[in-house]
Amino acid sequence: MALIKPEDYYRFIESLQCNYYINGKKVQKLLSHPVSKSMVDATAKIYELALDPRYEEVMTAKSHLTGETINRNLHICRSIEDLDKRAEMAQLTSQKLGTCNYRCVGCDALNALASVTWEIDQERDTRYHTRFNNFLKEAQENDWAVSGAVTDAKGDRQKKILEEDPDMHVHIADQNDEGVFVRGAKLHQSGAAAAHYTVVIPGGALRPGEEKFAISFVVPNSAPGLTYIAQYNPYSAEREACTDPTELGNPRFGQRETSMMIFENVFIPWEHVFMAGEAEYAVKCISRFAKVHRMNCGGACKVGFADIIIGSCLLAAEYSGTAKVPHIREMITEMVRLSETAHAATIAASVKGREEPEGSGVYMPDDLFGNVAKITTADNFWKIMALAGDIAGGMVVTMPSMKELQNPETRTYVEKYLRAAGPAEKRMRITKVLQNWTAGLHGPGTWHGAGSPQAQKISLYRSANLEEKKKIALEIAEMEEE
Amino acid sequence: MALIKPEDYYRFIESLQCNYYINGKKVQKLLSHPVSKSMVDATAKIYELALDPRYEEVMTAKSHLTGETINRNLHICRSIEDLDKRAEMAQLTSQKLGTCNYRCVGCDALNALASVTWEIDQERDTRYHTRFNNFLKEAQENDWAVSGAVTDAKGDRQKKILEEDPDMHVHIADQNDEGVFVRGAKLHQSGAAAAHYTVVIPGGALRPGEEKFAISFVVPNSAPGLTYIAQYNPYSAEREACTDPTELGNPRFGQRETSMMIFENVFIPWEHVFMAGEAEYAVKCISRFAKVHRMNCGGACKVGFADIIIGSCLLAAEYSGTAKVPHIREMITEMVRLSETAHAATIAASVKGREEPEGSGVYMPDDLFGNVAKITTADNFWKIMALAGDIAGGMVVTMPSMKELQNPETRTYVEKYLRAAGPAEKRMRITKVLQNWTAGLHGPGTWHGAGSPQAQKISLYRSANLEEKKKIALEIAEMEEE
Amino acid sequence: MALIKPEDYYRFIESLQCNYYINGKKVQKLLSHPVSKSMVDATAKIYELALDPRYEEVMTAKSHLTGETINRNLHICRSIEDLDKRAEMAQLTSQKLGTCNYRCVGCDALNALASVTWEIDQERDTRYHTRFNNFLKEAQENDWAVSGAVTDAKGDRQKKILEEDPDMHVHIADQNDEGVFVRGAKLHQSGAAAAHYTVVIPGGALRPGEEKFAISFVVPNSAPGLTYIAQYNPYSAEREACTDPTELGNPRFGQRETSMMIFENVFIPWEHVFMAGEAEYAVKCISRFAKVHRMNCGGACKVGFADIIIGSCLLAAEYSGTAKVPHIREMITEMVRLSETAHAATIAASVKGREEPEGSGVYMPDDLFGNVAKITTADNFWKIMALAGDIAGGMVVTMPSMKELQNPETRTYVEKYLRAAGPAEKRMRITKVLQNWTAGLHGPGTWHGAGSPQAQKISLYRSANLEEKKKIALEIAEMEEE
Amino acid sequence: MALIKPEDYYRFIESLQCNYYINGKKVQKLLSHPVSKSMVDATAKIYELALDPRYEEVMTAKSHLTGETINRNLHICRSIEDLDKRAEMAQLTSQKLGTCNYRCVGCDALNALASVTWEIDQERDTRYHTRFNNFLKEAQENDWAVSGAVTDAKGDRQKKILEEDPDMHVHIADQNDEGVFVRGAKLHQSGAAAAHYTVVIPGGALRPGEEKFAISFVVPNSAPGLTYIAQYNPYSAEREACTDPTELGNPRFGQRETSMMIFENVFIPWEHVFMAGEAEYAVKCISRFAKVHRMNCGGACKVGFADIIIGSCLLAAEYSGTAKVPHIREMITEMVRLSETAHAATIAASVKGREEPEGSGVYMPDDLFGNVAKITTADNFWKIMALAGDIAGGMVVTMPSMKELQNPETRTYVEKYLRAAGPAEKRMRITKVLQNWTAGLHGPGTWHGAGSPQAQKISLYRSANLEEKKKIALEIAEMEEE
Repeated sequence: MALIKPEDYYRFIESLQCNYYINGKKVQKLLSHPVSKSMVDATAKIYELALDPRYEEVMTAKSHLTGETINRNLHICRSIEDLDKRAEMAQLTSQKLGTCNYRCVGCDALNALASVTWEIDQERDTRYHTRFNNFLKEAQENDWAVSGAVTDAKGDRQKKILEEDPDMHVHIADQNDEGVFVRGAKLHQSGAAAAHYTVVIPGGALRPGEEKFAISFVVPNSAPGLTYIAQYNPYSAEREACTDPTELGNPRFGQRETSMMIFENVFIPWEHVFMAGEAEYAVKCISRFAKVHRMNCGGACKVGFADIIIGSCLLAAEYSGTAKVPHIREMITEMVRLSETAHAATIAASVKGREEPEGSGVYMPDDLFGNVAKITTADNFWKIMALAGDIAGGMVVTMPSMKELQNPETRTYVEKYLRAAGPAEKRMRITKVLQNWTAGLHGPGTWHGAGSPQAQKISLYRSANLEEKKKIALEIAEMEEE
Repeated sequence: MALIKPEDYYRFIESLQCNYYINGKKVQKLLSHPVSKSMVDATAKIYELALDPRYEEVMTAKSHLTGETINRNLHICRSIEDLDKRAEMAQLTSQKLGTCNYRCVGCDALNALASVTWEIDQERDTRYHTRFNNFLKEAQENDWAVSGAVTDAKGDRQKKILEEDPDMHVHIADQNDEGVFVRGAKLHQSGAAAAHYTVVIPGGALRPGEEKFAISFVVPNSAPGLTYIAQYNPYSAEREACTDPTELGNPRFGQRETSMMIFENVFIPWEHVFMAGEAEYAVKCISRFAKVHRMNCGGACKVGFADIIIGSCLLAAEYSGTAKVPHIREMITEMVRLSETAHAATIAASVKGREEPEGSGVYMPDDLFGNVAKITTADNFWKIMALAGDIAGGMVVTMPSMKELQNPETRTYVEKYLRAAGPAEKRMRITKVLQNWTAGLHGPGTWHGAGSPQAQKISLYRSANLEEKKKIALEIAEMEEE
Repeated sequence: MALIKPEDYYRFIESLQCNYYINGKKVQKLLSHPVSKSMVDATAKIYELALDPRYEEVMTAKSHLTGETINRNLHICRSIEDLDKRAEMAQLTSQKLGTCNYRCVGCDALNALASVTWEIDQERDTRYHTRFNNFLKEAQENDWAVSGAVTDAKGDRQKKILEEDPDMHVHIADQNDEGVFVRGAKLHQSGAAAAHYTVVIPGGALRPGEEKFAISFVVPNSAPGLTYIAQYNPYSAEREACTDPTELGNPRFGQRETSMMIFENVFIPWEHVFMAGEAEYAVKCISRFAKVHRMNCGGACKVGFADIIIGSCLLAAEYSGTAKVPHIREMITEMVRLSETAHAATIAASVKGREEPEGSGVYMPDDLFGNVAKITTADNFWKIMALAGDIAGGMVVTMPSMKELQNPETRTYVEKYLRAAGPAEKRMRITKVLQNWTAGLHGPGTWHGAGSPQAQKISLYRSANLEEKKKIALEIAEMEEE
Repeated sequence: MALIKPEDYYRFIESLQCNYYINGKKVQKLLSHPVSKSMVDATAKIYELALDPRYEEVMTAKSHLTGETINRNLHICRSIEDLDKRAEMAQLTSQKLGTCNYRCVGCDALNALASVTWEIDQERDTRYHTRFNNFLKEAQENDWAVSGAVTDAKGDRQKKILEEDPDMHVHIADQNDEGVFVRGAKLHQSGAAAAHYTVVIPGGALRPGEEKFAISFVVPNSAPGLTYIAQYNPYSAEREACTDPTELGNPRFGQRETSMMIFENVFIPWEHVFMAGEAEYAVKCISRFAKVHRMNCGGACKVGFADIIIGSCLLAAEYSGTAKVPHIREMITEMVRLSETAHAATIAASVKGREEPEGSGVYMPDDLFGNVAKITTADNFWKIMALAGDIAGGMVVTMPSMKELQNPETRTYVEKYLRAAGPAEKRMRITKVLQNWTAGLHGPGTWHGAGSPQAQKISLYRSANLEEKKKIALEIAEMEEE
């Protein structure tokens, strides 16, 4: 069984020398900074869940390369059931972490590459798929955490790719017999600094002439020339400043931590390069990645988050003494409906999935339902947060620091005046959880995770069978076809 | 193969002597009145579709009683795949009819009874399930159209059942060795007057003391004492007045035709009685029926309708010359999303279905997703109609009669001034289709078909696993369980 | 006092010889056809309301030309208070008619022309404003019903105006010393066939080279060459077929009746021409008309309709015995909120109105709030109908004909089984009112009346002070202005 | 002119010795802690705005007690125009502060008391109104900042007031000839620690037997026995940790700062007591306060916030190079519509206001439109934030610290890869502004400010003239009144 333990993973982190900056300073050890530590702890939790017998069916799979039991994050979906379990994993890890499973983008990018490299090799005289399988086998055997990087810096959106500074999109700056040198930056990257490897794919479709941007590869965590500049926001500051993480809304796993990932002539050996110049396959790579990621990150992941939010609202209402009030129940019902609608779209995306391309052995979810999942989630998640904000009450904004419970001058007041049907401390802790969601980064995060809604809409228009619908209408109208 | 032909069915209709009233007058022959004829034609179309090789997989099934190929409307779901095909049938018949598959309620009531009669027999010393199977086998062998009747007249909603006139709920007025005499009325009934038999189930949960209302049975179309009083509305008047059905928005199949079904001491022999006094099973019967019907009528059926609406909008936009305008495409995309969200909930309801009760062999959809399908449909269908109304343009309200195209004094004007990118006649016909939806009875119909949204919300609250969600939240907050 | 009585108006109608077609046949006398009669009765009701002391403040005004008391439909707004009263009239007539005040478009077009003709005369050597005032004075003195016509046939929307058949837009086909000859068609026109005169304005902005389409004028009801082809739909058929109007959802005033208005070389004398070739003023004319009409038709009118719908829902719930159920009250509350939001936008549009152009003495509502009123109404009205459909229940779709209450064979059944907390007849009559709205033409009608939502959105974007908002943001960010 | 300068106010703050705790520690000087300083700076800005000639019409008024020019926050509305200006002040201060005008609750409570004390004196043998006017005159002459406190701790929501610990609601614990001693706590209080005085009113309706809770008074900032425990959240932590406020999303004025305000036997002399035991007037006091506050805080204030958000989105889109993209413009338009709908409801609430009670000279806004403003805002503000989150892009979540721009090791990367059509620094700063809104406390804050939406809904149901609507419906149906 190719599954490592959390402690194995922590050992790797301790040995790590990555070039990681946060809040204007370099962090020497990820575990020494509370923000990067939360990202490491979340990644470790994934290792823990995979070893937990209660979750093994969801968290592990049997490798088609080695026949071994592997972490599902390194598995290529080879059936409808695999797709279904993949989506269930997204929901489960969201429930357990309340933040990103930092291996999610990597998993979906690996699946896209499994499909695309197979196709390139079929159509061109290339060996990308073999290389890819070699890397994947090694990753499975070592149970590596593999994150993924997609979005380029882009620069001025009014300009075409060739009109901008080439560094605005990751590209091959140079190459030799051993490999390629890449330059550029990937933004909004989740969790690479805590992963063993990161898989990089092109951020969009490419045209002839843009070959050097058609580059896909894996890069180890601390490759020379690679710099991480971490996000920083009020939640980072709160975590940095707190002395006891239980004062926070997600004590152990925190917010989703991303970074800018800067490639300054990073060398990638050929055996880690899975596309190099095949511009016309970039669109296939990104669209297959998007198809998978919409189902998982756009859909199932947020259902898991919603479960936390709904559960917290139920507890908050109990602690306040309002759990049985009709309009509270009505709001809970609506939150369930909103979440389960996205859940249903995720299920439909997996159930209606299929092998793509035929013969590749790789299964992809249905694109129509994947888009529906993502757009529906974007809309509904805000509505869920609005309802949660209503149930959470003013306290979600105005509650004092948990530290007041330790302050002899204020403790009695806080305990007395913030208790309701439940004690003050319980109310405050569950309110912190709700603050983390309703007054936090997840609203816009959900909007943009797995791509902007506008991109999904265009994709949805294309994936709907509109010609068939016109025929149906003509038949009802008893009109001849055009 | 136990499938009859449309012409066999029309022969049955011709021989029929039912007690059917519409617009204040008795109709002697259903085919002689354009409104009842549309209901007959729709029922005949179901027979036609079952014989069409393109649709046989969806429209037929193999009987578990006889092993014969039967119409799926008479099939008991015995697997997830059966549930999935059942929902697909609902979508297909909606696409093909643009109105009710009048056998849909009957099909879902038969499935509920298959499950409940099995359970009563297991727990009581009764023979309902055997009787039920005997009837079902006969129905399958003869390929009878079996409709269903559920909603009682109820009377004053502020009163309990025993405080009201007993006739306000269908009940056993008397009984003897041969059978029972039933009284009362079922409202909003779709298609019974054009069916061979109608299956009747209690309209709600019952308490001890209300045993006489716990009555379930089948009744043949023209049983003595049975009267149908048909609905009548502007669309009925338009159909009655028109000389050429192609002037109408759904030329052949019309609006969904319902009637009040009045039982004046109707005699039902014991072999057609499947529940008689078991008050505590009434809630199981209605809730299993609801569970199935939410998926099919609440969900899949309206997806089929939406396909017609979207297709018509695409044609209307082409004929106007606006098909490529960005905001039109945006609206089409949103319509697709709204419809496919309900579709996804339907798929999830079938995929997550299970045998109920265990051992019965009867498969029921998942209730959570069934409720989600129905409530989501109720919301989304209005939004689809609003968008369709926007695309259809003012013409959907203001267009003149198609008869003007035959009127020498106005024809030239209408042809000239109502053509756009497409000719006037095409624009007018597709606009009639859209009028039928956006300015017709389907808005409130969709709202209430398969039960009122409020009922589904209560059901959804109960079917959501709220305790589990509380545990998930406590774990994230690192709080002990309560 | 220049107010005529309903009977005076009916005399005019009786003497009328207009060229009016409906359902493929010519109607010789408007009062002889139940559909055109409803339009006449609605127009007569406006005369009645103006003479009713309870409504005189809203329905009448003092002419700035004659000093006489006139019908407000012929009044030019000359103050904020006038704007406010104008909007109140729209709400009141909607409450009283449940359909179009057929003088509404005319009133708003007269206001637009008062402003634009003044401006043209100021800037050009023309006498349009004098002519206009002469006509208006005559109209006021005779208390003429003046309707308005705006929307051209347009043809293929992909083509520019000069690329299409010129008849697709009303234009000057020829002219001489006495006047002009106009050709073309106005669509979606409300009530002209029952008015003394109709005021015609260009349907959109015009460019240089399109001068002949820049034509504005009034035309008497039965001018030679003028043909009306009336709309026809299920509600027309129901009215045509019924023997007793109280069987209908709006017994007396019916649906809004429109027609295509075809100009076949209609001669208009110069004294009735208020714009002839001034292409650059077309956009001012249509946009000022739109500004006024958005407030009145887009906003206030639908508030009056909503009052009817909400009142009917309250009665329907009382008759059913559900008036006190919490979720029914919640729905009523939401309907009130949705309606009053549009109402508020209407009030804001009038309160923030101003003289336009300065010096003209003509007051126009604020465009920002007018657009807000119209778009908000379009959205909210569908939501109100959806909620009304929910409260109305299945009966709104499935109720039998009111004629069954006269049928000795069915009457007892209908009276017995359709009564609830209230008697069957009351329930059926109020359900017909609700059917008229929730299953009728008002959904798409509301969407398109006063222009399509997309047009309002573009107008709203332009009328919002976006530069000011950028400055506000820069100041908060403590950033220098750009 | 009774207007003091910001520097006068800062002198008062410097001399202050209040009992203020934040994050578990006592703050000796409000200006020494960056969080309390932001609250002081915002209060000072109000003084500055009142002296700015550009804003004097909005920010100042003429006292009806002294005839002097006073800060409008101390003015009693005595006309429709006063109501309109009051709402305009709310919008203006929101635009200028991007946070609470901490005198807003106080202003609205003073208006409620002006009305209620007048009424009590009319009906009882009391002198509250005279006392109230004496205090108000003094406040106006000294230009005191007066904040307001309303919400009690309440305890278990399932219990009635007398079943709970009396301290759960502020009450008279004891009294003597000089005054009363009050106990209890007010929660969610905005800005009292930075004000000269705070006006306290009962938090809800009271029944006979609950007289001791019917207490209204003013209390000076540092009265003995008075403790403030400040809110603390991620945004507090970020401000506490930052070295340069321009790194923050609202550099100068921060988030709305609230505190728990604890009364431990605080002595209030009789001349500062405006209600003491008149339980039946508590409901009038709170409902009049709510009526005023819904218009100002529920409506106008959030329109000002929306102006900042929309302005920031416009800038963010320009800096990205997406300002002209159609779907961005569509989103901006929708944001404007959502905000201006709430704006319109505010305007309607003031325009339709009236004297209450008659003879008091105090003007109150219309309650129907006030409720509409508040509920519409609650809904729409979340939608505005969702749209803003979409336009802001992923950067609103993932942007690094502004400090990286000072870090020689990362500065070049950040400047290079985060510039688009605009430079990185501008993009980052405007993104911080948007983070402050879309990922901050304002969502739930808006939901609950001026009362929970559920409370407004009940109030709206009561304020709608439902009987009138029933009559309108009956008239349309040609039915007799009941």
